[in-house]
Amino acid sequence: MEKSYTPGLHILSTFKAAEQHLTDAKSCRQFFNDTIAQYQLAKVGEAYHSFENGGFTAIVCLTESHLSIHTWPEYGIATFDVFLSNFNNDNSNKVRAIYHDTLRYFNATETNKQEMLR
Amino acid sequence: MEKSYTPGLHILSTFKAAEQHLTDAKSCRQFFNDTIAQYQLAKVGEAYHSFENGGFTAIVCLTESHLSIHTWPEYGIATFDVFLSNFNNDNSNKVRAIYHDTLRYFNATETNKQEMLR
Repeated sequence: MEKSYTPGLHILSTFKAAEQHLTDAKSCRQFFNDTIAQYQLAKVGEAYHSFENGGFTAIVCLTESHLSIHTWPEYGIATFDVFLSNFNNDNSNKVRAIYHDTLRYFNATETNKQEMLR
Repeated sequence: MEKSYTPGLHILSTFKAAEQHLTDAKSCRQFFNDTIAQYQLAKVGEAYHSFENGGFTAIVCLTESHLSIHTWPEYGIATFDVFLSNFNNDNSNKVRAIYHDTLRYFNATETNKQEMLR
């Protein structure tokens, strides 16, 4: 029961982006849904919440783990996480690709990025 | 618009725990709900998903950011994240307290812990 297992790669990022992207939860949801389909991941739940100031927070639960984003348009930043487990196959390249695609979607400038092999 | 802002403390952990805890999504949900109430956080969405082998994955979306857990009972481990923003006040102590309470709830042995000030 106690075989060794390294769940997978988790990328955590903070980036700058324009207010129009940091306040558009609807478009972000479409982007996440398209991304999940493109990389053949399986969504099993999600939560999107918009704040009065226009910022939003979202988490997407995948059988492979999760995505999360929290935006602060008043500071021009967002924090983003993507974590995919390697249960069925090595998803590290998908983690990096999704991160890259997310920066591109937000037309973002990365201010901090950490890769953590969990 | 471009004031500096450090969103908050994120603790990421991998821990060992007994199969009975790693397969009990219902009790974990009760524990998370109790914890959210105890620390006066605001839940705005959640997703719980159980796998055929008994493991489960859960994410809880808070106005303050999120909690996530993914369990692998076949390996005796879970990965857990708690991230609370400091938008209204410094929530770092709550992050540490929730992490401590989670280890206690799972009767867990920490194998990896990272504190990240994002």
